[in-house]
Amino acid sequence: MEIFISGQIDGNILTLSEEESKHCIRVLRHRKGDMIDVADGRGTLYRCRLLSDSPSAATAEIMEKHEGWGGHPYELTMAVCPTKNMDRYEWFAEKACEIGVDRIVPVMGEHSERRIFKPARMERILVSAMKQSLKSRCPEVADAVSVKDFIRLSAQEDNAGLKLMAYCFEDEDHPRISIKEALQSAPSGCNKITVLIGPEGDFSKEEAALAMENGFIPVHLGPSRLRTETAALTAVACVYERFVM
Amino acid sequence: MEIFISGQIDGNILTLSEEESKHCIRVLRHRKGDMIDVADGRGTLYRCRLLSDSPSAATAEIMEKHEGWGGHPYELTMAVCPTKNMDRYEWFAEKACEIGVDRIVPVMGEHSERRIFKPARMERILVSAMKQSLKSRCPEVADAVSVKDFIRLSAQEDNAGLKLMAYCFEDEDHPRISIKEALQSAPSGCNKITVLIGPEGDFSKEEAALAMENGFIPVHLGPSRLRTETAALTAVACVYERFVM
Repeated sequence: MEIFISGQIDGNILTLSEEESKHCIRVLRHRKGDMIDVADGRGTLYRCRLLSDSPSAATAEIMEKHEGWGGHPYELTMAVCPTKNMDRYEWFAEKACEIGVDRIVPVMGEHSERRIFKPARMERILVSAMKQSLKSRCPEVADAVSVKDFIRLSAQEDNAGLKLMAYCFEDEDHPRISIKEALQSAPSGCNKITVLIGPEGDFSKEEAALAMENGFIPVHLGPSRLRTETAALTAVACVYERFVM
Repeated sequence: MEIFISGQIDGNILTLSEEESKHCIRVLRHRKGDMIDVADGRGTLYRCRLLSDSPSAATAEIMEKHEGWGGHPYELTMAVCPTKNMDRYEWFAEKACEIGVDRIVPVMGEHSERRIFKPARMERILVSAMKQSLKSRCPEVADAVSVKDFIRLSAQEDNAGLKLMAYCFEDEDHPRISIKEALQSAPSGCNKITVLIGPEGDFSKEEAALAMENGFIPVHLGPSRLRTETAALTAVACVYERFVM
């Protein structure tokens, strides 16, 4: 199965971008009358019939609409400090999309070495991961924000769900439980999860204290010493396992 | 903490390779008398005192020996079909090492596009992942073998432990359970796990049938459509979560 993506939907007529049209018509050789599957990137898949096989702006008529197609029964926000090497962060984003994540927030920690985050390339990677893993919704990439601001903003949300912060240092005042235990302790029906993952240099004590004050549960990811992106993906896998297996 | 690796241990004297000596002496500027930590790559960490700070062949006297240092309470063999793009397989190996894996077996499936596997580069990646994630044991990379031969060989093992095969296709004769259920169903005390992960084109029906005949439990990894390397890493994370969290 091959899915295309389109943000241009007008009534029951949908138009593919130049890039998608070229792929659909020139590469895959679809012709007028063919049925194709198109995701809107926001959670709906459309079965459509091609009305025009223009390689620059193919149009199609929507025959069926499938909301929530390829979705997952949880809502996961991963707030992860960007890694020094952006490839590692992009790799995390791609794999998290395949497994199932809703929102990626690049958060800048006090110990973060990287202070600039360019989302454009990551968004392209997410679109292709979404298509490759047959999902109709593309994870959102939020604007970069400081760890402390992210914590403060999340405190203002009603129904923020289960908020977890994974860090490495020992903290007598706040003994950590494993992310598995934390996910099991979630009130039944709570399927909204936020996981905060720190930078190579871990969170500062102040960031951790602020998170605790604002309802984050301190968690660990087991005894292994994981890189930022590996810790983040392990957390995504734990949430996925908790809700779908 | 920084760990070095050495395979040259003679009594209580240990010698670093030229590469490790250069890193220890030239880059990190260790001098005669300094204490350093050296892993043998087979599960033991040695605290040593440098006897010579030769940048080509530094030697050190073993003061303490820590067996099983940085280990995990399970024994995991991941038999994974190499991906078309080797970077994806090497990425899996690096991340699996960080989380915790004992043996990686490149298995060639009947639907595998890649038929050649060169372990050298992957072994270098595993050594650096092992050092970076502070483990004393480097995962073994077995010789490439066909999926069917791997299944036959594992059938000859006494105490092969829990053997799981993850595939995508529906099979009425062998309904699949989730890997989580399969791991929970393992007899208590069984911590030896083998997971077989297929190629992009999945296993052939014959490979799956042979695996079932030889005691493999058919499992799925949830509803998401995962690439080979993502499926393999998700399985590693599930085993890790089952045994250490």
